[in-house]
Amino acid sequence: MSPISFARGAPAPECLDVGLVGDCARAALERDGVAILSYGSGGGYGPLRELLAQRHGVEPGQVFLTTGGLQGFVFYAAAQLARRPGRVLVEGPTYDRPLKVLARHGANVVSLPMDDEGLDLDALEAELSRPGDVSFLYTIPTFQNPSGRTLGADRRHRLAELAVAHGLDVLEDDPYGLVRYEGTAPPSLHSLEGGRQVAFTSSFSKTVAPGLRVGYVVVPEPLRADYDEQAVSTYISPSLLPQAVVHELFARDAFETNLARICGLLRIRRDAMLDALGDEMPDGARWSRPEGGYFLWVDFPGGMDASDVLHRATEAGVTFVRGSDFFPGGAGGASSARLAFSFETPERITDGVAVLGSLLRG
Amino acid sequence: MSPISFARGAPAPECLDVGLVGDCARAALERDGVAILSYGSGGGYGPLRELLAQRHGVEPGQVFLTTGGLQGFVFYAAAQLARRPGRVLVEGPTYDRPLKVLARHGANVVSLPMDDEGLDLDALEAELSRPGDVSFLYTIPTFQNPSGRTLGADRRHRLAELAVAHGLDVLEDDPYGLVRYEGTAPPSLHSLEGGRQVAFTSSFSKTVAPGLRVGYVVVPEPLRADYDEQAVSTYISPSLLPQAVVHELFARDAFETNLARICGLLRIRRDAMLDALGDEMPDGARWSRPEGGYFLWVDFPGGMDASDVLHRATEAGVTFVRGSDFFPGGAGGASSARLAFSFETPERITDGVAVLGSLLRG
Repeated sequence: MSPISFARGAPAPECLDVGLVGDCARAALERDGVAILSYGSGGGYGPLRELLAQRHGVEPGQVFLTTGGLQGFVFYAAAQLARRPGRVLVEGPTYDRPLKVLARHGANVVSLPMDDEGLDLDALEAELSRPGDVSFLYTIPTFQNPSGRTLGADRRHRLAELAVAHGLDVLEDDPYGLVRYEGTAPPSLHSLEGGRQVAFTSSFSKTVAPGLRVGYVVVPEPLRADYDEQAVSTYISPSLLPQAVVHELFARDAFETNLARICGLLRIRRDAMLDALGDEMPDGARWSRPEGGYFLWVDFPGGMDASDVLHRATEAGVTFVRGSDFFPGGAGGASSARLAFSFETPERITDGVAVLGSLLRG
Repeated sequence: MSPISFARGAPAPECLDVGLVGDCARAALERDGVAILSYGSGGGYGPLRELLAQRHGVEPGQVFLTTGGLQGFVFYAAAQLARRPGRVLVEGPTYDRPLKVLARHGANVVSLPMDDEGLDLDALEAELSRPGDVSFLYTIPTFQNPSGRTLGADRRHRLAELAVAHGLDVLEDDPYGLVRYEGTAPPSLHSLEGGRQVAFTSSFSKTVAPGLRVGYVVVPEPLRADYDEQAVSTYISPSLLPQAVVHELFARDAFETNLARICGLLRIRRDAMLDALGDEMPDGARWSRPEGGYFLWVDFPGGMDASDVLHRATEAGVTFVRGSDFFPGGAGGASSARLAFSFETPERITDGVAVLGSLLRG
């Protein structure tokens, strides 16, 4: 049997509607072919920028379409660290790729604690009162990668207030927010604060297809010129065809139905993993119960070493990512794991969790 | 009448075969849809990497597909300046966008003189014997942007030898080489040197469509790991659909026929510009006569100030780019202009050159 991957933060192949993308590519080219095949602006395909600007209540010129969401982080970090040098605050744990980008900048990264309701705002407030400048806070408030946790509504209001009171710039990363299986979406930090200090970034990797690499950032006014200059000086304009495909999905009202289909597929996978964890985990293990997204977070019982568990699990045909990979310098998460339920079938999820359970029970 | 643009280094809309791209997008998705819509490798779509590797006689892992050609330069400059800090040698004039990228790095850029046969290699050799390290030479040896000049075959052999003798790393940028209207293509520096010190970069912006943003770099072995890390840390993988479209063009033997069609359209434009320059330019003006590409370079007579000419031309409805924009710090080209013949119709080219001629004749 091929290894069961709880490591891959990617959609199952069944989530990808190849026929729909093909139809949309052809329709977009028929509608606007010359523009799609010509050089465009640094911010990407105009009609999609306009659509997203409307959804977020901003000017189209504040929306930059990027080669996937990560590219938006790369531009943001470069612009913000130049504009406002200082410590970068992140959640502990947080998405590992931005940590690598920040390391390339030699940034001073401070990891703040979380609990089941997301970022610990008392810890944030204490950090903000420490001497020295803060460049920005990077947060993934909904179905966080890697923890699956969501920042509660009350905390969102308080965080927006803290941002204003302390002049704190925030990058709100929300690639998973629309991949919701139940419950009600809390307001974005961007909408609560008004978008003066909070930048918002998301992508269509989880809601359409990652291979298209269509991400976007809504940038506050002071960052706009630098964003534009970075985009133009990196790629003149991003690839327009995939962006036009995404726009065409909206134009024919296929985005929501396709998303509902994806959520239906992934909800079953999440349920399979939660059920299996309930059946298989030994006493003392704890895990998050996300209402959406791709991931959940497991704390192993009795401080078991996650590297050791991963080593044995890999030999038994199951992979995951160690918790320590999601802390700057690996300083945290030693007895934790990120489990992705997005990629494998429900049956293989059940089998894989059973393998982990037998390892943990010893 | 809308302004006549000799500034836009973009293909005329007639060069873009919207139907062909649509057919190829659908066929590529039908053939390999799940891979195209999933995350891929940092180097891009595997089948196109393999095809290009074969054409250049390298390993597929040395070929990195990028978001247009400029992105390849961005990665190269970051990797090479880190690996080998030192002066960056460029042609005077040279493509302006890389100059901006180098300025962001704070690089020490040295502009070397050219003549009708391209880079002056005596000047290069003198520069190489100066104290201090050289990071790399950036050259566009065929149908250079902005000058339209091509490095002669003898000089190519000598430059490859100089690279070996001096341990000089070279980035050979060749986006225009295949857009040839007459004459025989000289060998690439990459092939002459063997690809140990010469990196090669090109794109499909001029041979298929710029909006697809499919560029590539063939990187020497020592740069491979850093390239891969930069690509993965910037966008995980680049947009795969446009790359699969380009691959499909090759797979159905449509690349060459489409390119021949483009060359046919552009040759007429080049001829129209050369004819009009012969008819309209006053005594003392000089211009290049490229066998391909998008651009030619005009030296105005009597040291006339190009900024002044541009100002008056713009008022008369004709635009171009001043020569000084293609020198680091604007230190050169004060009485020269880059004229693009790629974008306008032959009729408008004739009209636009007539306007310039009347301005220059006073």
